[in-house]
Amino acid sequence: MNKPLTQDDFQTPTVTTGPLPASEKVYTAPMADPSLRVPHRLIHLHPSAEEPPVPVYDTSGPYSDAAIEIDVERGLPRPRTAWVTARGHVSEYEGRDVKPEDNGHATGKYLAREFPVKHRPLRGDGTGPVTQYEYAKAGIITKEMIYVAERENLGRQAMLDGAQDRVDGGESFGADIPAFVTPEFVRDEIARGRAIIPANINHAELEPQIIGRNFLVKINANIGNSAVASSVEEEVEKMVWATRWGADNVMDLSTGRNIHNTREWIIRNAPVPIGTVPIYQALEKVNGVAEDLTWEVYRDTLIEQAEQGVDYFTIHAGVRLAYIHLTADRVCGIVSRGGSIMAKWMLAHHQESFLYTHFEEICDIMRAYDVSFSLGDGLRPGAIADANDRAQFAELETLGELTQIAWKKGCQVMIEGPGHVPMHKIKVNMDKQLRECGEAPFYTLGPLTTDIAPGYDHITSGIGAAMIGWFGTSMLCYVTPKEHLGLPDRDDVKVGVITYKLAAHAADLAKGHPAAQIRDDALSRARFEFRWEDQFNLSLDPETARDYHDQTLPKEAHKTAHFCSMCGPKFCSMEITREVREYAAGLGENEKAALGLTPEEGMREMSEKFREEGSKLYSSKR
Amino acid sequence: MNKPLTQDDFQTPTVTTGPLPASEKVYTAPMADPSLRVPHRLIHLHPSAEEPPVPVYDTSGPYSDAAIEIDVERGLPRPRTAWVTARGHVSEYEGRDVKPEDNGHATGKYLAREFPVKHRPLRGDGTGPVTQYEYAKAGIITKEMIYVAERENLGRQAMLDGAQDRVDGGESFGADIPAFVTPEFVRDEIARGRAIIPANINHAELEPQIIGRNFLVKINANIGNSAVASSVEEEVEKMVWATRWGADNVMDLSTGRNIHNTREWIIRNAPVPIGTVPIYQALEKVNGVAEDLTWEVYRDTLIEQAEQGVDYFTIHAGVRLAYIHLTADRVCGIVSRGGSIMAKWMLAHHQESFLYTHFEEICDIMRAYDVSFSLGDGLRPGAIADANDRAQFAELETLGELTQIAWKKGCQVMIEGPGHVPMHKIKVNMDKQLRECGEAPFYTLGPLTTDIAPGYDHITSGIGAAMIGWFGTSMLCYVTPKEHLGLPDRDDVKVGVITYKLAAHAADLAKGHPAAQIRDDALSRARFEFRWEDQFNLSLDPETARDYHDQTLPKEAHKTAHFCSMCGPKFCSMEITREVREYAAGLGENEKAALGLTPEEGMREMSEKFREEGSKLYSSKR
Repeated sequence: MNKPLTQDDFQTPTVTTGPLPASEKVYTAPMADPSLRVPHRLIHLHPSAEEPPVPVYDTSGPYSDAAIEIDVERGLPRPRTAWVTARGHVSEYEGRDVKPEDNGHATGKYLAREFPVKHRPLRGDGTGPVTQYEYAKAGIITKEMIYVAERENLGRQAMLDGAQDRVDGGESFGADIPAFVTPEFVRDEIARGRAIIPANINHAELEPQIIGRNFLVKINANIGNSAVASSVEEEVEKMVWATRWGADNVMDLSTGRNIHNTREWIIRNAPVPIGTVPIYQALEKVNGVAEDLTWEVYRDTLIEQAEQGVDYFTIHAGVRLAYIHLTADRVCGIVSRGGSIMAKWMLAHHQESFLYTHFEEICDIMRAYDVSFSLGDGLRPGAIADANDRAQFAELETLGELTQIAWKKGCQVMIEGPGHVPMHKIKVNMDKQLRECGEAPFYTLGPLTTDIAPGYDHITSGIGAAMIGWFGTSMLCYVTPKEHLGLPDRDDVKVGVITYKLAAHAADLAKGHPAAQIRDDALSRARFEFRWEDQFNLSLDPETARDYHDQTLPKEAHKTAHFCSMCGPKFCSMEITREVREYAAGLGENEKAALGLTPEEGMREMSEKFREEGSKLYSSKR
Repeated sequence: MNKPLTQDDFQTPTVTTGPLPASEKVYTAPMADPSLRVPHRLIHLHPSAEEPPVPVYDTSGPYSDAAIEIDVERGLPRPRTAWVTARGHVSEYEGRDVKPEDNGHATGKYLAREFPVKHRPLRGDGTGPVTQYEYAKAGIITKEMIYVAERENLGRQAMLDGAQDRVDGGESFGADIPAFVTPEFVRDEIARGRAIIPANINHAELEPQIIGRNFLVKINANIGNSAVASSVEEEVEKMVWATRWGADNVMDLSTGRNIHNTREWIIRNAPVPIGTVPIYQALEKVNGVAEDLTWEVYRDTLIEQAEQGVDYFTIHAGVRLAYIHLTADRVCGIVSRGGSIMAKWMLAHHQESFLYTHFEEICDIMRAYDVSFSLGDGLRPGAIADANDRAQFAELETLGELTQIAWKKGCQVMIEGPGHVPMHKIKVNMDKQLRECGEAPFYTLGPLTTDIAPGYDHITSGIGAAMIGWFGTSMLCYVTPKEHLGLPDRDDVKVGVITYKLAAHAADLAKGHPAAQIRDDALSRARFEFRWEDQFNLSLDPETARDYHDQTLPKEAHKTAHFCSMCGPKFCSMEITREVREYAAGLGENEKAALGLTPEEGMREMSEKFREEGSKLYSSKR
């Protein structure tokens, strides 16, 4: 357990920088707006491959660009301020003063240092559209929309150029995935409410990305200090570290002291959208006593965080007084922190949740900064026994009602989902969410498909995540090996991110995303051709792949050897397959037909031919 | 890399013994045959739980029984010799002499020590049934059938006794899972070919288990030395270690020298069925030159291994000459070692595979010892790009044809399956296998749902394994984190086994196995009630769960604290839920109805009541 943070301890966060192995950061300029620089990663292959570099989606921001100098004390460059102000309908203002309760009344040496640079916030001034949803509805394509279209298209472009074969269609369960993503397609999906670009106008450091069923499946990594562990430096590095391995979004779930200052450091250095659960900080402001929460404290917290640039808020407005007793017979009751805070408040005050009764005002605040809704599932099941019960689905129906209100108010919306759900009960969650919530993007936590594997819940949830991603979930919230047991450290964050990247990728493949298979094919070709370095470099986690290989065969020569530790040098199935190819290449069409249709006859007919050629082809004894 | 084994190095294998935390080994005597002692594990809970111990399926054999002294030099007790001889139709004989080539011509100090005890083998004498399949067809219930019925029923019995509620039915995709497993049900399933009990009459140390779609999903762990790594001691301990964590079956995939002696040590100490791929040893006998393989060498190897007590053989008899060219355009060709050995042989000799042409003789040998067939998928896809292609399915159709022959010959049969398959192509594998192979049990390797995560292939395959297990696969062959990269060590074996246990359990839950959820519910109750020790002990891997918890909150007091590191001591969602329960318990039926149906009205009506009682219930400020 770490001791509480003090000023004396505080140092500039040290973050991980530099490219991944064999990787090059490149930027493309979309045709629709050549002023934009959209980042991608190219993985270069060994010259013997005679293949172009493999382009992969890149979430790591400037940290992986060797040409950019990182200064965590200043934060990342802020190009989006110009984009936002150029569109108009926003004005700069002084902003809310930081109050002692924003940092849990930490003072003196217990107060984490403020971020050194102060930016005046922007806010919608009521003269026109502010949110991506409002622009989309107005038929206007924003720079963010152009940017995300370019990002999603990376592999597709290579395929359309003829560098790759089109893969088969997959099974998308009614999704409508285009062969090529145009900015107009993005605009249309956002206008329909089927996709969101979480992009607070005050998060000027952001590299925008899109969350929706017809785009690549995204993942979210949770970080955050708590009352008992972790510090500002650790959290900033966890954010950078998570995005390095592929986190598309990061939620800061800090509790305890220094929430405001920690968040400021994170956002100013974050290339990905940052989400929060504002009720956590509101609770700290009333000293952890749920009954003492008020709409005014909560409202002030929303504004505080919106001004800082938080891109989406989890808001548990679907937890209504009438649903609380539905959880009483559950094995695990209410496991959502936000859900249980509001349940406690409602019971104490004998009133409907202020999140529900003030929902329109919440919309007005979030619209003014384009903070996206992540409508929280405060009644999600926390055990297999509680999956898909009346409490869970009653809340989901209310989230559908709130989605309509948020859209009317001009806000972007996604919907949070479970939780603990056995495999046979997963799909009905997806289907019901699409139906109740007008196809707003679904954002699920796992789901975990058993309760019996603490220590391995990244896996038990990765199974459910891959499946629900395939069925239509737009973003998967990661689960680390420490789930249910403790706070994730740096290694746990990485394992959680990689696990969810592979689950999201499995879903992309199964949905039939046109370019998803390019990386699999490149890696499999490398495997077949014993290009070990290429195998490592094309992996989601090159370091671990290399390390595992070297534990058995550490010598440098083995990296090019035509064998591996599984079969040893004397016999190798891959090597034999190469010989099969030579054989097949020598067969004429008639011979193939004879083999395929009437193998007995074919064998006799070709016997002579084999006898002549076989001795040449297979005389080498290995 | 280990140096080659020498006599000087050889020591008695040190194996892991003793019970798992809070666990007690118990034995029950089936009503149908009270002479049998069927092992189970009881996990005892903290007295505050006021719950009976949780019974779990136990694969660990005598090693986890503190009352049994283990002597690896003598091997485990051999009760099944009496069962088999009492049934008759078998006779003891001298058996085949061990030949130098059985151990790869290892001599002197390079030859691993022989197992100290020699048992004369049994063999069917042609006077009547020998295999479980033959007995089942004859309407005779064997001790093995009674034994496995008792094993499968453990949790079901508790449920029928009223200790547990019946869980909902799941979705079993046409499986026919009974509420209670009778020996007659087992016999009928075996007679139909829908289940097998791999149980060589010479593996007298075996604790029988059943593999079939209407029983609990089983898992297999692969072990085995190779030409470049690992030793006899390591392999024996890997077997014991794998079964400790839940491996229902173990395959010894050794290559290189000392295969015979290594296998003898493993089988004599194995409480679970041992499978092999005989072609691996046959290849060693011809110095690794596939072209030099002959039916006679292979036949002799089958007899050698059958006499030792191998319970199932992977036989790649479905790789036919006519199918070889179908793999030529694949990204990864033939990735099965057995498949590529036979492909090489067929090409070199211009002949149909001797496994196919001699299939009936193979059946006769295997029937005489009751070695079960595991019909190998030598043409399984080794890359996402190759999934479900013509080569793979042509072989599967041939496996269906061979299944019918094996059944006619009296043999037990299961069918091996892929491999690398994206999620949307998994179910057709299961459906086609059931159709082509007469519902013989399916035994799959994963499948891996992406190619891009080396180092995490236990996870990428665990996703596919859970799904195909749900769809109807009877046994899942584990994949470790080292897959594609190196040989698994002890830690990798454990991670692979736990991953596949949770995948199999996820499948059992989704299929609706009547008692599968008992352990989940017990663990979730422990979680809800902050019984940390019970949570650890009910986990698939108590050591890791405890270790992860202690990394954040090491103090002993935290094991009983009503909070965890995620929320800290001031606020806990679980604690709030307890308060919700007290509230709900105080609501009358009318009040509940009012809340559920007309929340607005309900709120007003109950306002007074709340005001009175609420202050009592929720006055404590934490």
